[in-house]
Amino acid sequence: MTSAHTPGPRVPHRTAAPDETAALFKDAFRTHPAGVAVITAAGADGPIGLTASSVASVSVDPPALAFSVSGGHAASQLAQAETAIVHLMGADQLELVRAFATSGAPRFTDDHDWSVLESGEPLLHDAPWALRCELLHKVPVGGSVLMAAEVLGIRPGGDHGSPLVYHDRTFHALGEHSRVA
Amino acid sequence: MTSAHTPGPRVPHRTAAPDETAALFKDAFRTHPAGVAVITAAGADGPIGLTASSVASVSVDPPALAFSVSGGHAASQLAQAETAIVHLMGADQLELVRAFATSGAPRFTDDHDWSVLESGEPLLHDAPWALRCELLHKVPVGGSVLMAAEVLGIRPGGDHGSPLVYHDRTFHALGEHSRVA
Repeated sequence: MTSAHTPGPRVPHRTAAPDETAALFKDAFRTHPAGVAVITAAGADGPIGLTASSVASVSVDPPALAFSVSGGHAASQLAQAETAIVHLMGADQLELVRAFATSGAPRFTDDHDWSVLESGEPLLHDAPWALRCELLHKVPVGGSVLMAAEVLGIRPGGDHGSPLVYHDRTFHALGEHSRVA
Repeated sequence: MTSAHTPGPRVPHRTAAPDETAALFKDAFRTHPAGVAVITAAGADGPIGLTASSVASVSVDPPALAFSVSGGHAASQLAQAETAIVHLMGADQLELVRAFATSGAPRFTDDHDWSVLESGEPLLHDAPWALRCELLHKVPVGGSVLMAAEVLGIRPGGDHGSPLVYHDRTFHALGEHSRVA
């Protein structure tokens, strides 16, 4: 036990070794588990979409969420969009999640059900949850953009199956087998 | 299969039934898995801390993360802080996580090792990762505050154990048992 005023471990300051901090930062978040979403929008040249592991609830009244995107064509198109659909994905949608996570992989194909809403965003029909959002705040952070979005409408899908988790470059499914007392 | 221009399912608009959207929003995020963090700061009247399931990596260069807080004493104190420590927690820290998640529960006690850094923030020694951050952006969203923070320094803890996931009001531990092919 250490009382509040006993000298204890320290957190090194970044300026001492910025490269080392960046490496530790990657290590830390590689092992921080996250739910998986596919975010779609109407791009300038057609529908765009990407897999994101940064989606989190922010507020219930009004319903709002946050996520961040960085790099690549889909991310830059999304950063310019006014609305988007955030699809929360389950373990049954792993193939779709991988397609939207892989650079250059075909995304809007006949291999899965999707359609374009009257408002322009592509909807993935198999997603357990589809949340249509207005992108209200876009905060540049480094080379990324942190977005806060108000939820305009929600479509619950059919069978929700096992929740999907991304962790240390692998996917995990939750259930009774993973539950802790 | 549905081609891009075939009328398909629709996302209901929120103004049709805002209460229903809020209920669906809670349902959706209750089943969206998340890693677990305890965020601490120097409060006006002593150390404060809270459990958060909204921490996500935003940028690697510079290393930056985001999270949101809402309601309560610790959250309002954190919203006023300039720096904080984001502790990424594992399954071995479940007791600590619960203490910081429970309203009114004692938090900074002799039951676990902690100390106050020279810079003022309380450090939880048992956390697998402690990331000291400068809170750069604070975006009010509904009754919550979305924060973007640059990481100033990182302290890796000792044994990292099983990753901890919060899902549907229960905790899960990841490992080979939860991994999907």
